[in-house]
Amino acid sequence: MYLFSSILGIFVFDGNLNVVDEILFSTADDSKNREKFIEKIRSRHKSLKEPDEVIAKKILLHFKNRQFFGDFCNKNLQLTKSDVKNSVSDDVLLIQSISLIDDLDKAINLLVKRLREWYELYNPEFSRAVEHHEKFVMEILEKGKNELLNEISLSPLESFGADLEQENLEPIKSFVHQVFDLYQLRKLQENYISALMDRLCPNIKAVCGTLLAARLIEHAGSLRRLSGMPASTIQILGAEKALFRHMKTGAKPPRHGIIINHPLVSKAPEKMHGKVSRALSDKIAIAAKVDYFSGKFIGDKLKEGLEKKFGKW
Amino acid sequence: MYLFSSILGIFVFDGNLNVVDEILFSTADDSKNREKFIEKIRSRHKSLKEPDEVIAKKILLHFKNRQFFGDFCNKNLQLTKSDVKNSVSDDVLLIQSISLIDDLDKAINLLVKRLREWYELYNPEFSRAVEHHEKFVMEILEKGKNELLNEISLSPLESFGADLEQENLEPIKSFVHQVFDLYQLRKLQENYISALMDRLCPNIKAVCGTLLAARLIEHAGSLRRLSGMPASTIQILGAEKALFRHMKTGAKPPRHGIIINHPLVSKAPEKMHGKVSRALSDKIAIAAKVDYFSGKFIGDKLKEGLEKKFGKW
Repeated sequence: MYLFSSILGIFVFDGNLNVVDEILFSTADDSKNREKFIEKIRSRHKSLKEPDEVIAKKILLHFKNRQFFGDFCNKNLQLTKSDVKNSVSDDVLLIQSISLIDDLDKAINLLVKRLREWYELYNPEFSRAVEHHEKFVMEILEKGKNELLNEISLSPLESFGADLEQENLEPIKSFVHQVFDLYQLRKLQENYISALMDRLCPNIKAVCGTLLAARLIEHAGSLRRLSGMPASTIQILGAEKALFRHMKTGAKPPRHGIIINHPLVSKAPEKMHGKVSRALSDKIAIAAKVDYFSGKFIGDKLKEGLEKKFGKW
Repeated sequence: MYLFSSILGIFVFDGNLNVVDEILFSTADDSKNREKFIEKIRSRHKSLKEPDEVIAKKILLHFKNRQFFGDFCNKNLQLTKSDVKNSVSDDVLLIQSISLIDDLDKAINLLVKRLREWYELYNPEFSRAVEHHEKFVMEILEKGKNELLNEISLSPLESFGADLEQENLEPIKSFVHQVFDLYQLRKLQENYISALMDRLCPNIKAVCGTLLAARLIEHAGSLRRLSGMPASTIQILGAEKALFRHMKTGAKPPRHGIIINHPLVSKAPEKMHGKVSRALSDKIAIAAKVDYFSGKFIGDKLKEGLEKKFGKW
C-alpha cells in the first residue's frame, strides 16, 4: 500500500496501483496543511509507505488521465491566488507607506513654493520672515495678516503687500488648508509606519529611528533580504552608483549610503563618518537578523553601545 | 509767478524765485491725483505759468537744500510701496491660480500613481478596470471592496487582492481622502479663474474656454501684453523653442503653441491645423484687445464665426 499526495488530495494505492482510498482537498488551505489529512488516512490503513522512484513514476502515469486536467488547473490557480494574497505582508505595506511619505514630500514642496509665491502678493514680509515651510503654513492658516505682521513687529501700513478682497483671499485660504492637510497626512503615515515597525522590526527601529529604518527596508526590498545582508552591504545601501563607480574606475569607495541620515553619522565630524557608519551598520545587521527571526528586544542595548562610543559630538 | 509741482507738493514761485505759496502732499494718493491741488492753487493766484527750461533749472536748485532730502526719500518710498501694492491686479492673481492648477496636476498625478500601487495590493482587479484617475478615486472613496468587485462582475473570492485588516486599511483611506480633496481644490481654483475672467476678459474666455485663456495670459505675462500681441505671435505662444529652431536652422516653423489645446484645433485633421490655428489666433487677438480696453461682449460672435467655418470635423 502506497501513500501519495498531490495538490488534488491524498491517495492510497494498492500493490496493483489502483486507488483504494482518497481524500480530496477542497480549498487552497487544505493542500498547504496536508499533514493532518495524511495522519487521518494513516489511521485508516496500516503499513502505508512512501512509493520509491520506480513506483512513483507509475503512479504519476495514473494522473495523466484527462479527467484530472481540469482539476489540476483549477487547484493550481487557487494555490497561486492564495500565494499572491498572502504575499502582502507587513513589510510590503511598510514600503508603500514610506514611498508615500517620499511622494508627499515632493508634492508638499511643489505646492508650498507655489503658495509662497501667491501669498507674497498679499503679505511678502511674513513669508520672508518665516523660512520653515510647515511653520509658515500653520501660522497663515490660523492668523490674519495684521496679526502676522505684528509678530514680526511691522505695522500693516508698512507692508508692501496688496490689500486683497475677501473673494480673492478665499482661493488662497482653501489652498493653505489643503497643504496643511497634506502635512497631517504625512504625520499620520509616520505613525502608521511606527506602529507597523513595533510589530515587524522593533530592534531596527530602536537603532535607526522610524524613517531611516523604513528606508533601509525599502532599499533592501524586504525585511528578509535586509536580514540576509552583511553589515558592509547595509553600510552602502543607497550608494550603489558610487559603489559601481568605485569598482569601475577605482574612485574612492562610498563610506555610507542612506545611513548618513542617522544623527550619529551626520553629527560626527567629517573624517569620522566612515568609522561611525561601519559601527552603525554592524548594529543594524544584528538588529535585522534578530527582528527577522523574531528574537527578543535588544535594540536599546545596541543603541546605547553606539551612543556611548560615538555620541560625544 | 511760476507753478511747480514735485512729489512733495505744489509750489508757487515769484519772479525772484522765492516760494510764496505751497500745498504739501500728505499721502501717496495725493501726489498721484495732483490735478485737483493744482486747480486749487490756480484759483488763489492769477497769471500762473509753467517755468521754461532756464527757470526750471533755477527752481530745482532751490530743492537741493538739505531740508528736503528726508522728505524726498520718504515720499519716494511711499510712492513705490503704493505702486507695488497696486501692481497686484486681477491678471496677476489669475496667473497664480493657473500655475497652481498645473502644480496640482503634477502633485495629483504623483500621488494617484502611488495610491494605485498601494491599493492594488488590496484590490488589483478594480484598479486595472478603471483607468480614469479621478473616477477611480471617487469610486474607492465611496464604496467597499466587495461592492467594487461586483461592479466589474467579479466575486470577492476571485480577487487576487490581499484581505487587509481594518488597521492596514485606515492609512489607505485617509490617503484616498486627501487625493479626493486635491481634486476638489482643483475644481475650486477653476471656478475662481472662471469668475476672475468674467470680470477681466470675458471675450477671450468665450473664444478659448477658461483654462486655455488663462494659459495664454500666463504665457504673455499679463492681459496688457497679450492685447498688444499680433495674432501671429499669439498663434505660437508656448512654441518658442520650435520658433527659434526655425529661425536658426531653417526647420519648419511651428504652426501652433498652446492653442493646440483648443478643441477646434485639436479636433481638426492634421493638415488643417495650421489654417485653424491662424484663424483662431486672429479671433483671440481681437478678443484680447476688446477685453483690455473694456469694450462690449463680442466673444460669442467671434466663437460662432469660427465654429461655422471649422466646426464640421
